[in-house]
Amino acid sequence: MTTQQLIDQIQLKKSFLCVGLDVDLNKIPQHLLETEDPIFEFNKAIIDATHDLAVSYKPNTAFYEAYGIKGWLSLEKTIRYINENYPAIFTIADAKRGDIGNTSSMYAKAFFEDLNFDSVTVAPYMGKDSVEPFLAFEYKHTIMLALTSNEGAFDFQTLNVNGTELYKQVLETSKSWKNSHNLMYVVGATKAEYFTEIRKIVPDSFLLVPGVGAQGGSLSEVCKYGMNANVGLLINSSRAIIYASNGIDFAEKARAVALQMQQEMMAILS
Amino acid sequence: MTTQQLIDQIQLKKSFLCVGLDVDLNKIPQHLLETEDPIFEFNKAIIDATHDLAVSYKPNTAFYEAYGIKGWLSLEKTIRYINENYPAIFTIADAKRGDIGNTSSMYAKAFFEDLNFDSVTVAPYMGKDSVEPFLAFEYKHTIMLALTSNEGAFDFQTLNVNGTELYKQVLETSKSWKNSHNLMYVVGATKAEYFTEIRKIVPDSFLLVPGVGAQGGSLSEVCKYGMNANVGLLINSSRAIIYASNGIDFAEKARAVALQMQQEMMAILS
Repeated sequence: MTTQQLIDQIQLKKSFLCVGLDVDLNKIPQHLLETEDPIFEFNKAIIDATHDLAVSYKPNTAFYEAYGIKGWLSLEKTIRYINENYPAIFTIADAKRGDIGNTSSMYAKAFFEDLNFDSVTVAPYMGKDSVEPFLAFEYKHTIMLALTSNEGAFDFQTLNVNGTELYKQVLETSKSWKNSHNLMYVVGATKAEYFTEIRKIVPDSFLLVPGVGAQGGSLSEVCKYGMNANVGLLINSSRAIIYASNGIDFAEKARAVALQMQQEMMAILS
Repeated sequence: MTTQQLIDQIQLKKSFLCVGLDVDLNKIPQHLLETEDPIFEFNKAIIDATHDLAVSYKPNTAFYEAYGIKGWLSLEKTIRYINENYPAIFTIADAKRGDIGNTSSMYAKAFFEDLNFDSVTVAPYMGKDSVEPFLAFEYKHTIMLALTSNEGAFDFQTLNVNGTELYKQVLETSKSWKNSHNLMYVVGATKAEYFTEIRKIVPDSFLLVPGVGAQGGSLSEVCKYGMNANVGLLINSSRAIIYASNGIDFAEKARAVALQMQQEMMAILS
């Protein structure tokens, strides 16, 4: 998917919502556990109930790997289901991968070719040659961690390096990498003021923003400081939507929460 | 496996060799491609031929994920084969994972429980709460990236933070984390002099060292600066061993290279 196609979808749906498909078998409705593939059945119901309100789905690979081969089968079925039924959706494999060059190429192949995701999240610690193999794929997007929304973000990401903060240096350096137009960045919503500084470095890039809602970030604040002319934001919500209910009405309740978020986004966009 | 059991194996085998199982179907002997699971058959032959010379095997997950479900099945069969036949071997899932707390717990579950690896490699960028869920597993080991062996290592890892280099700060900070006795570190062999500085910060920790051989590092130099009273090193070799030949004699040739490395290690240990 091209960036323009994503922007078009945002305008069409009046939404920049990304739904995180972090499926924990301990949290999903009991009645699904009797099905052959509870994770897929859960995802399918959530997707069917929210696809007109969200522009993106983001399964986090950890939740699938934790169930071994069965989990990978569920992931494969989920991404195939989205691609076949809702091809305009922007799909994100939240995998936070990164390795030396030839090894990163294998990860890129796994997520872009084998699973056919539109994008994958990567970690920056190993630098340029760990990320460029992902960037080499045309019409695929590489979403690099910049400033994350967890407590540990302040262990290293905000350390002062040569008069700036590490995450800003990461943003700055990455702009010089080959095919850097295929880069997007993960920026947590915990401190909306950070977005002002970030937009000075990457004014045009899309930012994937976790941490709105459950983790305390405010949607209107993030938009105030982080939005650009093309919106440039994908706001992720996982638990607040997918676990809105753990009863038989889970999909319906998930839709209600997603609708509320989409309505807030529509108000901001207009 | 406890650290002491690993040390005992090193003394017994007079080896601190780790064999990287980075299996690329384009590089393995043609005749294996006719088997039902070429990756597993390749690994099995390499393991059977080298298990008395190596103390550790390290499959890099990228090479398995690239083949989708089939790849994960091969990984699962490989780790099960090692655990059943050579239980004294220290197994490393080279996965370079890391995510927010509850998500890292899922990765830890995947590698320590579902697949039953002794250790997993992780990335430090997201800080304390992204690593501690791995450290919570007793008799399991978390091998964190410190200074990697690739070119991109110099993009961020060696940046000056508050008067020191980032990778040193990563080492220093990690020592304060809960269950930090379960930490080991990845340190590339490209510049052996770095080990002197690293040993000042983590004198007792095991270091997993890629980059000897193919990537230019010298075994004797690494040992000179990096070895401690318990050896404290696992030297990884992947391509030089597993692709020593791509003919019918590949396992035999792999053994010959592994034997040469083990002999060099034995000389250093004595």
